[in-house]
Amino acid sequence: MLKQLKEQVLEANLALPLHKLVTFTWGNVSALDRQQGLMVIKPSGVDYEQMRVDDMVVVEIETGRVVEGSKKPSSDTDTHRALYLHFAQIGGIVHTHSRHATIWAQAGLDIPAWGTTHADYFYGAIPCTRKMTEQEIAGRYEWQTGEVIIETFNDRGLSAQDVPAVLVHSHGPFSWGKDADTAVHNAVVLEEVAYMGIFSQQLTPQLGKMQQSLLDKHYLRKHGKTAYYGQ
Amino acid sequence: MLKQLKEQVLEANLALPLHKLVTFTWGNVSALDRQQGLMVIKPSGVDYEQMRVDDMVVVEIETGRVVEGSKKPSSDTDTHRALYLHFAQIGGIVHTHSRHATIWAQAGLDIPAWGTTHADYFYGAIPCTRKMTEQEIAGRYEWQTGEVIIETFNDRGLSAQDVPAVLVHSHGPFSWGKDADTAVHNAVVLEEVAYMGIFSQQLTPQLGKMQQSLLDKHYLRKHGKTAYYGQ
Amino acid sequence: MLKQLKEQVLEANLALPLHKLVTFTWGNVSALDRQQGLMVIKPSGVDYEQMRVDDMVVVEIETGRVVEGSKKPSSDTDTHRALYLHFAQIGGIVHTHSRHATIWAQAGLDIPAWGTTHADYFYGAIPCTRKMTEQEIAGRYEWQTGEVIIETFNDRGLSAQDVPAVLVHSHGPFSWGKDADTAVHNAVVLEEVAYMGIFSQQLTPQLGKMQQSLLDKHYLRKHGKTAYYGQ
Amino acid sequence: MLKQLKEQVLEANLALPLHKLVTFTWGNVSALDRQQGLMVIKPSGVDYEQMRVDDMVVVEIETGRVVEGSKKPSSDTDTHRALYLHFAQIGGIVHTHSRHATIWAQAGLDIPAWGTTHADYFYGAIPCTRKMTEQEIAGRYEWQTGEVIIETFNDRGLSAQDVPAVLVHSHGPFSWGKDADTAVHNAVVLEEVAYMGIFSQQLTPQLGKMQQSLLDKHYLRKHGKTAYYGQ
Repeated sequence: MLKQLKEQVLEANLALPLHKLVTFTWGNVSALDRQQGLMVIKPSGVDYEQMRVDDMVVVEIETGRVVEGSKKPSSDTDTHRALYLHFAQIGGIVHTHSRHATIWAQAGLDIPAWGTTHADYFYGAIPCTRKMTEQEIAGRYEWQTGEVIIETFNDRGLSAQDVPAVLVHSHGPFSWGKDADTAVHNAVVLEEVAYMGIFSQQLTPQLGKMQQSLLDKHYLRKHGKTAYYGQ
Repeated sequence: MLKQLKEQVLEANLALPLHKLVTFTWGNVSALDRQQGLMVIKPSGVDYEQMRVDDMVVVEIETGRVVEGSKKPSSDTDTHRALYLHFAQIGGIVHTHSRHATIWAQAGLDIPAWGTTHADYFYGAIPCTRKMTEQEIAGRYEWQTGEVIIETFNDRGLSAQDVPAVLVHSHGPFSWGKDADTAVHNAVVLEEVAYMGIFSQQLTPQLGKMQQSLLDKHYLRKHGKTAYYGQ
Repeated sequence: MLKQLKEQVLEANLALPLHKLVTFTWGNVSALDRQQGLMVIKPSGVDYEQMRVDDMVVVEIETGRVVEGSKKPSSDTDTHRALYLHFAQIGGIVHTHSRHATIWAQAGLDIPAWGTTHADYFYGAIPCTRKMTEQEIAGRYEWQTGEVIIETFNDRGLSAQDVPAVLVHSHGPFSWGKDADTAVHNAVVLEEVAYMGIFSQQLTPQLGKMQQSLLDKHYLRKHGKTAYYGQ
Repeated sequence: MLKQLKEQVLEANLALPLHKLVTFTWGNVSALDRQQGLMVIKPSGVDYEQMRVDDMVVVEIETGRVVEGSKKPSSDTDTHRALYLHFAQIGGIVHTHSRHATIWAQAGLDIPAWGTTHADYFYGAIPCTRKMTEQEIAGRYEWQTGEVIIETFNDRGLSAQDVPAVLVHSHGPFSWGKDADTAVHNAVVLEEVAYMGIFSQQLTPQLGKMQQSLLDKHYLRKHGKTAYYGQ
């Protein structure tokens, strides 16, 4: 069942330690078969070194029911489900506690667009959610984590396609893309711009946003109809 | 004698350079056989590359007497003994000078709980001890190091089980757990939250503690009776 | 055609990830055959692991016409062309988004000469360009990027030979040299001094320039007629 | 001639990139045969990967004359000579531009003793020299670099044995020890305390010196007649 998707999800999970985005088991990747309404996700708390394709868990996104796999899915499964159900174009999701993105999340701040590295992948600031309420935390916490992400995008009029990452306040980053591999790619870029942003601001404390025209140029050079980057 | 424990202690010691927690010989791990009242600890000043299972030293925790091993035990042996004798639930202890935990120790500051990475392992701030007195330093220094850690936990009403690490003022971190492997695991997490804390505070200088409800949620999701993380 | 130059350019491109100057495909190296008026440059958006000598693209520097190669040249090709056409002594160019040089570029600041590491390679501050105008960004953007670099050197009376690198505002660094290998070498040094500069200034916020006499001594010890460093 | 010493010096030089203390050829190690009045030092500007035992250069310390070796000795040879001639107990010297020690040198600041990691190796602050004068720079620069180090130790009443490192203002660190291996060891520790000091001070901006009693305890635990660390 979903053999190819499982392999992609395994490979994408294994890419996290290679890119130094995770310590121990602190990360998870999923991918979606939107036609079948099924997602494949990493099992909870399993070491990356020991993880195999058969450990991947298949979950029905509408219900959260495990339809294949002997292991429990990632504890963040409901966050992934909420995002897939709301954001119609995404096919892969990554969650990590990568150091510098998490630093911004802990500080409760958006990562402003401060350069073309950012602009090549994210069409504007990477938002940080509000703090979750006690009710949300006490309730269906992981699902509510997804809800607060969606609220952030709705309230700010952001497109999940143009800004493929978010910081959950006091927690860490989620990123996504058309598939698992792209979601990992965006997680790497996010970590890179998070690192550079910390120190850019230290050098120039009142650093304003980059020029809109330069943001447009770089984002649209790589994305959309008029893109001309790559082969 | 204690063959399995020695192997665990050797392996845990060797894990320290793998996790980049030590430079040269600056770290030590021990583990306890509480029933027999014996602990196994790294020898003093021996290179990690050359360390073998037979180099591990067996020490009686009540007396500090070496009961097996041809080498001198770690110079921090008495600190380990004091902690084992006072904290009834711990079975492994790690001491390192890992960079970022040591930075907080040198600065003489607790590491506040600023995110779920912290909350997943430490139920509140990781305390920094007071400075030791001249008498304590001039006397049985290593034993007194243990005493000042214990005093810190007593004075603040902390549980060694729920906060499995401490910073010794102007020195560095100790961490612990049910066994040597868990103690190393906690040393890695400590270093991670120490790193992230430095820069989270730089981004938001008056950063308050994380929400108690989120701290509860994450700590209890992984620890205690209602834990649901992992397999 | 230009077989040896292609091999040099490939090797120089592969050196970028080895020196940890690039993430993914974010960098490019070119080299020039000035007699023939041809440059060899990396193809656009191709993974470093898969890049082969035949992927290198040969471009006529006067016209920008691709004269050999089945792939599209780097999207930054016109920046390289502009620099080769204006700076008569350079034979290799590198562009990266290396972390610390990019931090200075994002902050919009020159990297001052603060030590002999800098002085050994750069005869004074490494300049950061002004922001580009909307017209420049909307127009022949990559060519204009070259123009703004050249303007920076002209306006400040800098020699491209003595200051073999620049930061493009809100973007990242370009460096160069007599050949591709030297350009990579200078990119590594640039990243090193960029890192050290951030924290030197944090330790001494009003840090002035280094002494001119020391800058002279170190630069001229390695460069020019009276050099005596090396074999 | 001095075969064993040459091997030690080669090995010590090769240890510099292993400990990530040097980029390219930016570092050099020497060792002294004090009885014969000869030192062995790295050749100037030779790649670490290609360096062989026969490349090591033998220099008479009184005169600076090369007595064996086909290559030019390190350009810093006269600094090494001055230190050997003045500091009677040292047998090995290392010079690097290691990142964090160099940051302090560029900032023109001593590294204060802020913790036991420091106290285990350095009996007090690691001094930064004054700036060199124009005359010193224009004259026998490398020899004068040694002179300004010696002046720093004399003026402050420091012992080269108890404080086995220095920062040369706007330049970088020198460290030393009884032999080449110990000098490298001290270079590693210096880099470690340099890193930790930067961020300790950021956490606690008015951070005072560590307690003298703790500095005494740790330094003397490892050094001098009453040492009890190690086997």
